[in-house]
Amino acid sequence: MRRLPRIGVIGGSNPTMEALKIAYETGKLIAQKGAILVCGGLGGVMEAASKGAKDANGTTIGILPGGDLNSANPYIDIPVATNIGYLRNAMVVLNSHSIVAIDGSYGTLSEISYALIYGKKVFGLYTWEIPEVVKCKNPEEAVNLALKEALNVINRKP
Amino acid sequence: MRRLPRIGVIGGSNPTMEALKIAYETGKLIAQKGAILVCGGLGGVMEAASKGAKDANGTTIGILPGGDLNSANPYIDIPVATNIGYLRNAMVVLNSHSIVAIDGSYGTLSEISYALIYGKKVFGLYTWEIPEVVKCKNPEEAVNLALKEALNVINRKP
Amino acid sequence: MRRLPRIGVIGGSNPTMEALKIAYETGKLIAQKGAILVCGGLGGVMEAASKGAKDANGTTIGILPGGDLNSANPYIDIPVATNIGYLRNAMVVLNSHSIVAIDGSYGTLSEISYALIYGKKVFGLYTWEIPEVVKCKNPEEAVNLALKEALNVINRKP
Amino acid sequence: MRRLPRIGVIGGSNPTMEALKIAYETGKLIAQKGAILVCGGLGGVMEAASKGAKDANGTTIGILPGGDLNSANPYIDIPVATNIGYLRNAMVVLNSHSIVAIDGSYGTLSEISYALIYGKKVFGLYTWEIPEVVKCKNPEEAVNLALKEALNVINRKP
Repeated sequence: MRRLPRIGVIGGSNPTMEALKIAYETGKLIAQKGAILVCGGLGGVMEAASKGAKDANGTTIGILPGGDLNSANPYIDIPVATNIGYLRNAMVVLNSHSIVAIDGSYGTLSEISYALIYGKKVFGLYTWEIPEVVKCKNPEEAVNLALKEALNVINRKP
Repeated sequence: MRRLPRIGVIGGSNPTMEALKIAYETGKLIAQKGAILVCGGLGGVMEAASKGAKDANGTTIGILPGGDLNSANPYIDIPVATNIGYLRNAMVVLNSHSIVAIDGSYGTLSEISYALIYGKKVFGLYTWEIPEVVKCKNPEEAVNLALKEALNVINRKP
Repeated sequence: MRRLPRIGVIGGSNPTMEALKIAYETGKLIAQKGAILVCGGLGGVMEAASKGAKDANGTTIGILPGGDLNSANPYIDIPVATNIGYLRNAMVVLNSHSIVAIDGSYGTLSEISYALIYGKKVFGLYTWEIPEVVKCKNPEEAVNLALKEALNVINRKP
Repeated sequence: MRRLPRIGVIGGSNPTMEALKIAYETGKLIAQKGAILVCGGLGGVMEAASKGAKDANGTTIGILPGGDLNSANPYIDIPVATNIGYLRNAMVVLNSHSIVAIDGSYGTLSEISYALIYGKKVFGLYTWEIPEVVKCKNPEEAVNLALKEALNVINRKP
């Protein structure tokens, strides 16, 4: 499991229906392509993407703000408790080789910021328009690009 | 000292000359109006604002990414060591009643995000254009608005 | 995987040969009894216990101090990057239902402290003598007790 | 203020009356000798020591577990909000040049552990008996030794 690419999915906990569908599709594609899905472990975009990944027999990691493993949404295989609240946003990004951002509010913006601070590429679907975020047309494009980048990161010489 | 308003100044460590001047002026005004300046304690906008505050006999708090108190710039009165790297960005914001953002890159964007997550108002000078950030014309306008907001926060009934 | 008990193994990065053997045996027993091993992801007791778990086809989670997933020892299946240094010690404990402490220095003592702060039971093998730490004779006793406690925690009504 | 020695006082939030008296005396001596008192900012030993320091016109820094500056005890001049709960224990220690430990439970034990991890000297008054903690007879001995050590740390060549 350790050698698999990890794609982070970040996005709002109160998304539109459209964003939920996109998140579900994104999670499903991540699993179908053999990558692990990493997210913040709670509801909204995080839960929809996790459900998508599980429906395709994928593996999901949820980096939680609280200290209780049971606070993860039902589609998380590996909950990680942090008990540092919103500071865990940086850890969602640190534990991913590349990121897909969907919709989202200020929490998502903080995660995009940390991704760019740490030099991780972000592929965006209907999210914040930030210069270095690669705007994608649909989940397929975003996941293809995110997977390619994740494999690049893994194979890069240290 | 505890009852004084605290205004956070956030901004890049590699700013333009123009941003440095604005930061210096902002720090000076914060001190002249009797508020404490809070920042990330390092160079660039943080150092220029701290120098401005000290030139006006103000007080400065620097929330550092590292564990060494000596890593603060020379104009910090009260360095605070955290040793949690960029996660300290959230703490710069938590320790301020209101924020002035000047120029800046992704670190500044993460601080703006945390400010808005925590419900703190941000007044912007030549910085990221984010809907809830109040765009200001000059340091005087930004500091006046930030001070008014800080006093509102302090006097708000819990 | 989410429903499995998680047993944390904490201990020094520079242990005695005897402690390494005990750690290996402890990790092996944890895996044989169907629990997930959680540790700090690095060398010494952490690595020996992880190797034991993998030799028995178990699953291992390593909560790392740094931000690089590759810094985990080779027997970690699921590395978790935190980038908060020794503060991650609290997270090793938060992600375990019960703890086995083996040998160890001040890092281990901080983990024992956090376990007791968070109300998690600690079973000790040649480690710090702290009143609430249950002193065990050998890995079998420690893992049996830790597993029983982990199952208690999981089945406790919220 | 930046050049002054900082002495951390750690200890329980539910201390005995005797420990409270010792904490008050310790805080008073720290201030009388011109050092800044650093603590966790809440009640019990932290509050008694802070009151002692303020009664001698000293300066007090409180590193809080929560995000609200108003949660500090009334004798804290400079509250520092962290919002990371018990993980802030490491920061109490990082912000001190040396430590006096008084009484205390597992929180105090975690702070002693972090002090020793970070190479800071701890002077103990009726607290955990840990080999490297220097057992002292009374507040005067503890503060004298802690001050001497703090000045050593400050004057040490980097």
